[in-house]
Amino acid sequence: MHIDQFLLALVAIFVAAKLFGEIAERLGQPAVLGEIIGGILIGVSGLKLVDPKDVTIHLLSELGVILLLFLIGLETDLSKLLAVGGPAAAVAVVGVTLPFAGGYLFGNWLGLETMVSVFMGAALTATSVGITARVLSDLGHLQDRESQVVLGAAVVDDIIGIILLSLLGSLAGGAELSVMGVSRIVLIAFGFVIVAILVGSKLAPALIRAIERINMAKGLFFAAVVFAFVLAYLADVVGSAVIIGAFAAGLVLARTEKAKEIEHQVHDVATFFIPIFFVVTGAAIDIRTLNPFNPDTRQFLLIGLALTAIGVVGKIAAGYAAWGPGLKRLIIGVGMVPRGEVGLIFAQIGLASGLLSAGLFSAVTVMVILTTIATLPMLRMLLDKKTPDAHPEYSDYVMDAPDDD
Amino acid sequence: MHIDQFLLALVAIFVAAKLFGEIAERLGQPAVLGEIIGGILIGVSGLKLVDPKDVTIHLLSELGVILLLFLIGLETDLSKLLAVGGPAAAVAVVGVTLPFAGGYLFGNWLGLETMVSVFMGAALTATSVGITARVLSDLGHLQDRESQVVLGAAVVDDIIGIILLSLLGSLAGGAELSVMGVSRIVLIAFGFVIVAILVGSKLAPALIRAIERINMAKGLFFAAVVFAFVLAYLADVVGSAVIIGAFAAGLVLARTEKAKEIEHQVHDVATFFIPIFFVVTGAAIDIRTLNPFNPDTRQFLLIGLALTAIGVVGKIAAGYAAWGPGLKRLIIGVGMVPRGEVGLIFAQIGLASGLLSAGLFSAVTVMVILTTIATLPMLRMLLDKKTPDAHPEYSDYVMDAPDDD
Repeated sequence: MHIDQFLLALVAIFVAAKLFGEIAERLGQPAVLGEIIGGILIGVSGLKLVDPKDVTIHLLSELGVILLLFLIGLETDLSKLLAVGGPAAAVAVVGVTLPFAGGYLFGNWLGLETMVSVFMGAALTATSVGITARVLSDLGHLQDRESQVVLGAAVVDDIIGIILLSLLGSLAGGAELSVMGVSRIVLIAFGFVIVAILVGSKLAPALIRAIERINMAKGLFFAAVVFAFVLAYLADVVGSAVIIGAFAAGLVLARTEKAKEIEHQVHDVATFFIPIFFVVTGAAIDIRTLNPFNPDTRQFLLIGLALTAIGVVGKIAAGYAAWGPGLKRLIIGVGMVPRGEVGLIFAQIGLASGLLSAGLFSAVTVMVILTTIATLPMLRMLLDKKTPDAHPEYSDYVMDAPDDD
Repeated sequence: MHIDQFLLALVAIFVAAKLFGEIAERLGQPAVLGEIIGGILIGVSGLKLVDPKDVTIHLLSELGVILLLFLIGLETDLSKLLAVGGPAAAVAVVGVTLPFAGGYLFGNWLGLETMVSVFMGAALTATSVGITARVLSDLGHLQDRESQVVLGAAVVDDIIGIILLSLLGSLAGGAELSVMGVSRIVLIAFGFVIVAILVGSKLAPALIRAIERINMAKGLFFAAVVFAFVLAYLADVVGSAVIIGAFAAGLVLARTEKAKEIEHQVHDVATFFIPIFFVVTGAAIDIRTLNPFNPDTRQFLLIGLALTAIGVVGKIAAGYAAWGPGLKRLIIGVGMVPRGEVGLIFAQIGLASGLLSAGLFSAVTVMVILTTIATLPMLRMLLDKKTPDAHPEYSDYVMDAPDDD
């Protein structure tokens, strides 16, 4: 890619994000819904100004979701998250089990091979922690107890998703699964977060004191960004996901005395990268799979609608696995519904490995599109729009931070 | 490039930039010198953690220099720049003519082909406006009258460089040059800046009023960034350079009432990208060409030293072409010396077109390295380090902006 194409793609991304984000907000919807729709219009289904498979665009969108999860981590109180640990784990486990079983049984009923049915079940288990966290933040509800349950469950769900992907990769490769092998994958996936938080919590205060002592220009900003990138890198290297590492980095730094200042300093850079992620997510969606007048894709549209129903019912039911006084469990369930980019990654791996035919890939894509886009207005109806005054740095998608006015 | 390599490269860039930038400052040198040296250590000459030819790294470093020139433009008062227009033009013209003639005659004396001698002369004409502007800003002297002359001359120099590159490209391709063809190239190169400033000055206030009226979240930030990227894109499309477009965008927005606010909002994002440019510039430098103990390269080292002398003398002499009461003309001349990335681009085109042998390419690289790195301490000696209190948003490389403390 040459610099002129790159500049044009960035201009298209920012214009689409701000224009459609603004329209969504005026219609009372979360800005992220507008950004995804803007992405659809300039991506593979529309003007083709942004190629989501271009390596630079893809890497910048990854930086966007890394910075988003880092900020969400910075906003999250680990003790509050652990306080809802039980309900969150229950929601995650039920929210994986029900859609998986439903997808598998549906595949069986269609007469698909066992491995294909397993894969379809697995593709239904994902929750996009990025989309869920962003919509809760757009609406100013990130600190609600329901949101903490959703956030915890979505992170556990992501970790389970990583485990499932590793297992499916081995199975698709024809490998036998040993108890040892499975245990190792599970241990690494959960162990990383625990070790990162324990070790990070020891190191972070010393790092911040060192930066303070040398009084380096923009030192805290770069130290925080480097800390987040290093944990994201380590997560990837041990076989976890970059967003899990970034979230852990945020959780760790949230417990230091400089948390607010870090959040403030990282905010503007995050504002630049985060819309790239959501617009590129939209740009990757191929809406031709939704065309009911095309006889070639109609049966897969129907399969996709059935998968959507299974996915939505399974996740909403999972919300009722939570407990706690006065907890609105329907909100939790709906918050778990969006599959987003995680669902698309599952679908693409299935297509690449040959497990999913082009038609079944479309069907899974239909499920991803509908669970992502259709649930945002649902969540909007269940949550009243708050003015998120308690966390001004974070909520500029709803209103400008006071220092920027 | 995969996300883990990308994160590792970014971490290496930021750590090198802040660590060596800080060391340079403690030694009383501009931070940019440390960033370039940090880049040498992690680039092709050192740890190879950063590949300057990787497309994503290259594009991010381009964004860095685009945002730098945009900020410099925002800091520049067009009327002050035009007030020194005469002296700046004289410095630019003499600063192109003398090194070009010197390089050409030296090539002739060495017995090189005419076209090769022409190319060596042309490679000596460049001035890196990015490096010059950055070091003036690092030392808090961007608003000095000498700095305005240097800035104006460096921009004119860049425009002349673009013209020379177009002409050399045609000549190397064996084309005959017509008066019409040359006039067209010259007109486009200078015309773009004039048209961009005239048209932009009409459009910018309307754009800002529109953004104000819809009161969009972070609207001013995205409008400014999009405006800079669009002008950079247009400059590239008409055959000028992206940094000229970005500088023109800054000049235009500097004349609106929101200039200070735009500067403040774009600042943090620029802080993220600008060090990438300077570290990557360093990472591209191959210091093996400076090894005096290697008999294969020794003669080219000597040629490189001779080119350096011609380049330094020619640019310093150009400083004396300026006029004005009390103007320190030595400072202007020294400010014009660094060739930086522009010199490297010339050298790479020469190598790719076959005009420069590998040895002569090394010789030009030696000249680029020495004029870039060695002149920064010289400039530091001539300029006392000011506390740039008048422009706090811009000078965080010297001290933190007050609002970030």
